[in-house]
Amino acid sequence: MTTDRRVNGAHLVRLLGDWRNGPLPTAHAGLASRLRLLILDGRVPLHTRIPAERELAEALGVSRTTVAAAYERLRSDGFLVSRRGSGTWTHLPPAGVSAAGPVATLGDGLLDLAHAAAPAPEEYLHAAAETAVTQLARFLPTHGYDPLGLVELRSAVADRYTARGVPTTPDQILVTGGAHHAFALALRALTTPGDRVVVEHPTYPNALEAIRWAGCRPVPVPFGPDGWDLEMFDATIRHANPRVVYLVPDFQNPTGFYMSAADRAAVVETTTRSGTTLVVDETVAELWLDRPPVTPVGLDAVLTTGSTSKAFWGGLRVGWLRATPAMVRRVGAARASMDLSSPILEQLMAAALVPRTLEVVSARRAWLRDARARLRSRLATRLPSWTLNSPAGGLAFWVDLGAPVSSSLAIAAEQHGVALAAGPRFGLDGAFERYVRLPYTLEPSSADEAVDRLAAAFLAVVEDPRNTRSASGVEMDVSRAARLT
Amino acid sequence: MTTDRRVNGAHLVRLLGDWRNGPLPTAHAGLASRLRLLILDGRVPLHTRIPAERELAEALGVSRTTVAAAYERLRSDGFLVSRRGSGTWTHLPPAGVSAAGPVATLGDGLLDLAHAAAPAPEEYLHAAAETAVTQLARFLPTHGYDPLGLVELRSAVADRYTARGVPTTPDQILVTGGAHHAFALALRALTTPGDRVVVEHPTYPNALEAIRWAGCRPVPVPFGPDGWDLEMFDATIRHANPRVVYLVPDFQNPTGFYMSAADRAAVVETTTRSGTTLVVDETVAELWLDRPPVTPVGLDAVLTTGSTSKAFWGGLRVGWLRATPAMVRRVGAARASMDLSSPILEQLMAAALVPRTLEVVSARRAWLRDARARLRSRLATRLPSWTLNSPAGGLAFWVDLGAPVSSSLAIAAEQHGVALAAGPRFGLDGAFERYVRLPYTLEPSSADEAVDRLAAAFLAVVEDPRNTRSASGVEMDVSRAARLT
Repeated sequence: MTTDRRVNGAHLVRLLGDWRNGPLPTAHAGLASRLRLLILDGRVPLHTRIPAERELAEALGVSRTTVAAAYERLRSDGFLVSRRGSGTWTHLPPAGVSAAGPVATLGDGLLDLAHAAAPAPEEYLHAAAETAVTQLARFLPTHGYDPLGLVELRSAVADRYTARGVPTTPDQILVTGGAHHAFALALRALTTPGDRVVVEHPTYPNALEAIRWAGCRPVPVPFGPDGWDLEMFDATIRHANPRVVYLVPDFQNPTGFYMSAADRAAVVETTTRSGTTLVVDETVAELWLDRPPVTPVGLDAVLTTGSTSKAFWGGLRVGWLRATPAMVRRVGAARASMDLSSPILEQLMAAALVPRTLEVVSARRAWLRDARARLRSRLATRLPSWTLNSPAGGLAFWVDLGAPVSSSLAIAAEQHGVALAAGPRFGLDGAFERYVRLPYTLEPSSADEAVDRLAAAFLAVVEDPRNTRSASGVEMDVSRAARLT
Repeated sequence: MTTDRRVNGAHLVRLLGDWRNGPLPTAHAGLASRLRLLILDGRVPLHTRIPAERELAEALGVSRTTVAAAYERLRSDGFLVSRRGSGTWTHLPPAGVSAAGPVATLGDGLLDLAHAAAPAPEEYLHAAAETAVTQLARFLPTHGYDPLGLVELRSAVADRYTARGVPTTPDQILVTGGAHHAFALALRALTTPGDRVVVEHPTYPNALEAIRWAGCRPVPVPFGPDGWDLEMFDATIRHANPRVVYLVPDFQNPTGFYMSAADRAAVVETTTRSGTTLVVDETVAELWLDRPPVTPVGLDAVLTTGSTSKAFWGGLRVGWLRATPAMVRRVGAARASMDLSSPILEQLMAAALVPRTLEVVSARRAWLRDARARLRSRLATRLPSWTLNSPAGGLAFWVDLGAPVSSSLAIAAEQHGVALAAGPRFGLDGAFERYVRLPYTLEPSSADEAVDRLAAAFLAVVEDPRNTRSASGVEMDVSRAARLT
């Protein structure tokens, strides 16, 4: 970090180009976004001193406040560092932070393809909220803390497991703030720092975050072309001796793979034999689209997580863990390190909704089938060089871009008003640059518009010569990319 | 333990106070008894080096033989260890009883004195829920995830800070699942395993849990008889070089101490000078009972946590962090390792309640003043051997039981139908066996009944010969205990 490299105001203004003409609502957000792209693309090299706020403000003809806010945002994201007396320098945040693009917030004007989550089934949610408010009165005289969850909700969730073929009692259910929260709690209760946790590769990004924060090491098992590679899985368990295995057998996130009953039995046998705890994430298990599912695994040795987020609505933060009663109490006791308990009103809403799972998800399945077909068709027309998988359930395609440009695409997409989860978010060490996850969860008109913007973003990426000479050394299949219309 | 913490002769003399004026026949027995209490109460922290025999003898003006005999007695009881060439250190013998009380759940039939949380102000909660349900419709077409929190709520919280004298903008507020969740997230964003985190001793038990789970080491600073011992605080900061300091200056949990404006300024100066991040927990700051509070600290260097749990209701799981916009984004980004975002309906309820803080808490203050007076009076009648502190705000008494029987009392209380948080839950290494926290948050008739049951439980404890010959070797003041009716 001792170079004297710097870029002056006039130079940076040229590099920034037409930064105002973007979809972002505020000038400082637009400026920050463009500057981030320049740093990520290496057009402003790392460890380069950039102009002082006042100098750039004058060169751009904007207020110093705008530049200060943009710099501050980039500092907080790790793209800039400032030191008193020596100015502001470009920097790159630790891997895993940068590739994803920004955290999308509600109402920031971006079309959100970063979250695989559909709008709520409004009439059901509204009715459940009305019911919950009526029942709330009963709980207001209490202090409101209930670490394991309201018995009303634990019973409803247990009944739903029983209906799916796995007899379950309420004391086998721990209420959490979502399936991911249930997994994070299970890690707390089961692991100690340094433990290994086997994951599919690619896998759910926040699972990797939780594993790292537990001080554990994620050990990836790759997929074969048609799904789980059980030979590799067995060998990994033998060699890594993991404490926990985390799997998403139902419409795996992000690949969409679905595990057969025979493979599930084999996995359970392997983990049981090795004394490893198997955590099965059933977040989207109810959202099968093409054929009814196999009966879930309900063995004592297996912990199952689920939630209302995908079958009902992401704005309802209720999930659960299914385990033995003893394990439920053990994992519940770990919660105090993180938060205290789940909100009463949310739990009452979920308790009203879970018994209606079948009617809600059957309507939702029809909606998702249509959305899946429409997105597939639109992508085939507008981005024909992309190769889609065929998920039999769940909420997203896993798309082969034909070239390792996913992170660049995510950045360009943001410039075009689309939030995207780049492939490397789902992997370790920068893998999956050729892939992007595309949810079919937007309303039809928004989805169409998002594809059009993606096509424009992709064109910008492939026309940029720096992307066909990618840093990873993989050459892009330009003939296929050029076919896009 | 390899800390360099030590207490010198002059400081220990101040802590010992009027040790000669006790019932014990010999000077060395009196000195040992007083020193044992200081260790048990955490006022001389564990693993602290105490003065050499000669130094303390000179400082006290007694013979070296007296000090040597006292030290020898404490060594044989396990409260001190000496190592040739490196001095004498405080230590605590293994506890005979588990420190933790039971986990109370709603509706388990126990009168709950383990949680310091009052019933909801029902009409306000109900109105807020109705309002929130009306507004929910606006969010149902979205996916419902908003990692930093709804702008409606962030604005309401910012406005409340501004009204309290600390100008605050919405982008300085991160919405969380409670004040404790905000602290856990701040630890994730700020610390790496092995870092030290300074805490008051005693302190909020779940804060200790969060610190341990972050892989950090809690470093306790004891209180003096009237509040914070700033001399000890400064010395601890200097020696421990902590990454974070966690303080509850407003009606500290559990001691009820209230920090003066001058002491706050001194603490901020110390932490700022040492580059330590100060996290101030304002969970009960709005619940002053005797006199209006000082203006909160609103400096950029200080992170503040708060919640709706105590001012409104514990069943509403909404809290926040106040920090710089950059820090808000940084801490928000850490959330994905734990859970995803806060429920929309809860946030809408909180956004409806927070602007009404003043009217809600003024009614609540009146309720709590009555409850505090009633509990004090009932305890004076039924358990006259207990010594209560005088909290000027907050939700609980910190009660000196007169004997180190808190864990035994918690167990006996559960058998008598009362859930209790034993003193050692609030400390490290088994300290505070003489204390119990008693909230004045139950409805009057329940509170009266709880005291009656506690009196029966205490009688059972003191009549059990195992407790008067306690494992820790501390002799109980049976004459005082016997006064209970």
